[in-house]
Parts: sequence; C-alpha cells; structure tokens
Amino acid sequence: MRSVLATTSQGQYEILVGGGLLESLGARLAGLVEPARAVLVTDENVAPLYLERARSALERAGFEVSHIVLPAGERQKTLERTQEVYGVLYERGLRRSDVIVALGGGVIGDLAGFVAATFQRGVRLVQAPTTLLAQVDAAIGGKVGVDFRAGKNYIGTFYQPRLVVADLETLATLPEREVRNGWAEVVKYALLVGGDLLAAVSATLDEGGLPGEEVVARCAAEKVAVVQRDEREQTGERAILNLGHTIGHAIEAAGSFAGYSHGEAVGLGLRAVLWLSQRLSGLADEDAALGQALLSAASLPERLEEIDPADAAALTARDKKADRRGTRYVLLSGLGRPLTGCGVPVELEAEALRWLATR
Amino acid sequence: MRSVLATTSQGQYEILVGGGLLESLGARLAGLVEPARAVLVTDENVAPLYLERARSALERAGFEVSHIVLPAGERQKTLERTQEVYGVLYERGLRRSDVIVALGGGVIGDLAGFVAATFQRGVRLVQAPTTLLAQVDAAIGGKVGVDFRAGKNYIGTFYQPRLVVADLETLATLPEREVRNGWAEVVKYALLVGGDLLAAVSATLDEGGLPGEEVVARCAAEKVAVVQRDEREQTGERAILNLGHTIGHAIEAAGSFAGYSHGEAVGLGLRAVLWLSQRLSGLADEDAALGQALLSAASLPERLEEIDPADAAALTARDKKADRRGTRYVLLSGLGRPLTGCGVPVELEAEALRWLATR
Repeated sequence: MRSVLATTSQGQYEILVGGGLLESLGARLAGLVEPARAVLVTDENVAPLYLERARSALERAGFEVSHIVLPAGERQKTLERTQEVYGVLYERGLRRSDVIVALGGGVIGDLAGFVAATFQRGVRLVQAPTTLLAQVDAAIGGKVGVDFRAGKNYIGTFYQPRLVVADLETLATLPEREVRNGWAEVVKYALLVGGDLLAAVSATLDEGGLPGEEVVARCAAEKVAVVQRDEREQTGERAILNLGHTIGHAIEAAGSFAGYSHGEAVGLGLRAVLWLSQRLSGLADEDAALGQALLSAASLPERLEEIDPADAAALTARDKKADRRGTRYVLLSGLGRPLTGCGVPVELEAEALRWLATR
Repeated sequence: MRSVLATTSQGQYEILVGGGLLESLGARLAGLVEPARAVLVTDENVAPLYLERARSALERAGFEVSHIVLPAGERQKTLERTQEVYGVLYERGLRRSDVIVALGGGVIGDLAGFVAATFQRGVRLVQAPTTLLAQVDAAIGGKVGVDFRAGKNYIGTFYQPRLVVADLETLATLPEREVRNGWAEVVKYALLVGGDLLAAVSATLDEGGLPGEEVVARCAAEKVAVVQRDEREQTGERAILNLGHTIGHAIEAAGSFAGYSHGEAVGLGLRAVLWLSQRLSGLADEDAALGQALLSAASLPERLEEIDPADAAALTARDKKADRRGTRYVLLSGLGRPLTGCGVPVELEAEALRWLATR
C-alpha cells in the first residue's frame, strides 16, 4: 500500500492506494471519526460487485450502514438526481457528523461529493473510487458537482474528503471502455510530469497491463501537489490539470454526454493539444509523436468520428475557465513542461478539430 | 461610513456600513475587480426601490449590468428557484470572472449567494443587504443556501463575498415586520457581547429609532470576529451565533416558514434561551428580565401563539448542529457570557416551549 497526504484549507486527508483496501475501509475510517451512520452511495454497476464488501467492512468497525443505489452513467449526474438523494438523506435524518461514502467512479464521486458538500452545508465524505479514472483524478482534489444542460460540471463546489481509499482490486472488473477512460488521465499525467512517470506509464502500456500501485499513487500525488498550490482555481496553477480537457469537454458536450466517454474525449483533446503545442509552444515533433503513440497504446480513439468538428469548436467558449479574452489552453513546450493560459486563435482551434477528424 | 475587514480562508473582504453607499457600489467594486458583467439578483419588493440606483452605480463604473427579479419571501428560497436562476445565468453565458450582486434581504443573499458559490464552482459575489437582518447577520460570514422541505437552510455551503455594502438608507423603507426581524439579531448580539453594545442597543430602543452606523457596524464586527475563529462551524465557536436559533428555527419550521417570520421566531427562541439559562447556566433573574425587556422594546412577540409547542419541540432534533448526543444549545451564564454545547434535557426543552406559549 502507498499513502499520499493531501493538505487543504479544509484540513488534511490521506489517499491510500493498494490491493484489497476496501476490506479495511471501516477500520481506517474509525481511526478518523467516531463511529456514526454511514451512507454508501453507489450505482447499479458497482453495487453487485463491491457494496457488500464495503458495507461489511464499515459494519465491522461499528458504523450503522445504509445505502443508496443510483442508475449508472454520466447522464445521472444531474440536479434532479441530487435532489432525490437529498430527499433520502433528509428522510433518514442524516447529520453532519455522519458519513457519506462515495463508492464508484467519477460520476458517483462527483454527485455524492456535491451532496455531501451541500447537505446541511457539509457532511463528512469518504471517496472510495472503483475506477482508474476516479482513482487517479476525479476522487482527488475536492472538485464536486453535476452537469447542467450542455455544461459539464457546471454546478458544483470545492469540498475535501476525510479519506480516499483506492482499492486496486476493483480495477480488475472494469469494462474495457472504463479502463481506457482512466488511461487518458494517466497519459495526461505522464505528459505533464515527464521523466520517470512517463517511462513507467510507457512500460506498463508496452506490457499491456493495468497501472499498478506506483503509477496510480504517483498520478494521485501529482494531482495533490498541483491542487495544494491552487485549491480553488484562483492562481491559475491548477489549470495545468486541464491539459486536453478544454477540447475534451467540448467533444463530450457536443455528443450530449452520450457519444464519446469522458476519457475518450480527453484522449482526443490530448491529441489536439499535442498538435497545437507543435504549432504554438515549440513542442518537438518526436515528443508529440511519442504522446500520440502513448494514446494509441492505451487504445484511445485515433480520430474524431462521431462529432462534427464545428459543433465541438462552438462549445469550447463555454469552458468554465474562459474569461473575457477567450478560452485559455494548457499547452506543452516539451514533455513534462506544461504552459498555462495560452491563447489559441479561434481559427487554429477549429483547424485542430478538423485535423482530429481527418488525421 | 464605517468599514469592517473580514479575513477568511477564501481571502479578505470589507463590510462597508453607512448612509447612501449604494451610490458608490460600482466605484468600490471597480477598485476590487476588473469591470465585467454584473448580474443584480433582487426581489419584487426591492426592485422598485433600489434596482435602478444599484444598476446606474454599476454602469457608471463600467460594468455591463443585467438583472434577475424573483418573487419575494422565504418560500422562494428553494432548489427549484435556484435551478431557475442557474438557467438564466447559463443562457446569459455568465463567467466566473463576472459578478453576482445580491441586492435584498436574507432570502436574496442566501439564494443568490448559493447560486454564486455553485455556478461554475464559484462566481464573484457582492452582498448588498437592504434589510437590517441581512446587514447585521445574513450577508456576513459566508453561509449561503436554501431551505429543503421543513429544513431551514438545509442545503447550502460556505462562500465568501468580495465585498459587502450595507446602505443604511435602505432601512428607511423597511416594513415594520422587517425591522423587527433585524432587531431580533441586534438584541442577540447585545446579549452575546454585553457591555457597550448592550447599552447602545438599549438606548436606541428607548429612543424608538433604527440602529445607526455604530450599532450595525459593531454587530457586523462581532459576527466577523466569531466567523474568523470558526469559518466552517468545525470548532464549535461559531455556534455562539446560534443563540436563540435552535428553538427559533424549530418554531419557523413548525409554521412551514409561513407563520412567524425569522426574526419573530428568533425573538421567541431568545426568550426561551433566557428562561433555560436561568435554570441551567446560572443567568441572574434580573439579567434575564433585562433581556426579555429588550425583546419587548423591539416589539418582538411576547409569547408563542400560532404554533403548538409540541410541534416545535419535535423539530429541534432536526437542527443541523445536532449530533448523536442530541441538540446542543447556546446558553448564557451572564449578559455577554455565552456558553456553547450545552445539553438541554428533552423534557426541559418541551417545558420551555410550553412556558413560551403560556407566559
């Protein structure tokens, strides 16, 4: 097991990464808070696989456990679903000193996290991510929220968990598409950090395996380090985590969250960013090619096929990080060398999307 | 004009208190942020009186101003109304770097504040409170949110404004009931702080006037001091601000927010707390009598008439500050000497409510 310590304005918490950690979820939580009520929030895919394991671990540690099982999928990440969960918690009389455990992928973590942040202005939260994407990204850093119309994560806040437990055993049951979703973020970290991590990711992809303890923990640690420098996206430093996400979100939104998955869209966004970085920020051609090869090795889409490039281009201006000067991009001047706040002319952005559709 | 500086984990902001301050709203805001779009959120009562004044002040300073006028009243403080405002902001393409100005009483401040906190995970917020209650209490300290079923402020978060502008001229147009609402909080501060502030409040009530710059600014400063010690209600210190509110909220909820107003309910809650403090925390009879007399001088209700005491008692357990040991009260051991975390036996709580109905 590896442990990463995160320090935030709302307190410190540990991110634990290792195989079989769900078994000790209750014991670890009991070391942090008095046994209370715990509500496991999960979805219909995860419940048959891991709900009982989490429930019995919490019960063994003295928690009084109940659960809420939601339908699965990004389309569930709505205010309506949030309101439904509020209603259940209200009826169960949940208190601030009780605990909400988000057991699932990014959708569950974001939605249950937003509920925890806002129910009675804050109930204790534990993130138990069961997908690669959530373990390296979504469950870390305190961003919680739901989608609104075509706006991805348009309604939300910043709320830190008390504990993150990433059980690597849960990755074994992930469908292939979910594995790809996670790989997109892992490749993003490899491009941002370069060096050792890039080498480790490249080696794992060559072997055709899943990322292990080291890669997952290092991605989590990288995210924590960035978030600690800019918890609420105020200084701009946190923006480097958006590498590939501006175009990725636009592609996802253009498909009304029903076409490309988040990871597939981010993978395409990363391809576009590599292309833009060659043209605008001096990324060497061989480094761009290495990045494209990593994305291919991770079985991420080679080109934009399901979406009209012009539809995606029209949506980048809705990006939450946009200001009066337009959408700002994160580009790379080299592997491991991100640049934030880059202006990209609208025509070049559109050209990048057309390139993505025809490469 | 007086100025109170508030320091929070999300940055510093000033609370300005004085006559005619709405005229300089735009100029003051322009000193803090680049001119951007500003959305004035207000209600049907306030709009005819002050919307144009605020709008033209913002426009003179270079802001591009639009507005949203909501129906007035606590019953509007709902998730449904919040969602409606999100929709308008989404359609207007509001960005994080734009500004939401909450122009109105506590309902507008809480609702527009919650929208600002959660829209794109945080849009800049200015509080321009136009009621006594909001100027001394609701607009300060970062608590934002809406009601949920019978749960007062059950859904919300903590979000700090960039600026609070309390224009005392707006108090002149307040209906009597709204003035009483504010007096309940002012008397609360007088009981909590004692000394000079108690004397100033007592003198103002004797003269039959409205609280002036000194009293409003000192109440605001007291709130800021408490909030700075415990921004997110974690250490328990912030709880002293709940003097009178546990029973007050229960009375308000028992009337489904349509019977007693917030201030009237808090006034009744303060009467009950004085009674409980005589019995549990050694408050001298003459000090309790002085407190009761201040509440009477402020024209706050003498007794609980519209609500069955048993209904209110049943709702105190829903208090957000409740934990496994039950509801915790703030009591007084003397004027200016609050005690937090006090246990009150359920029977005595019920007796206090019965006393309140029959005194």
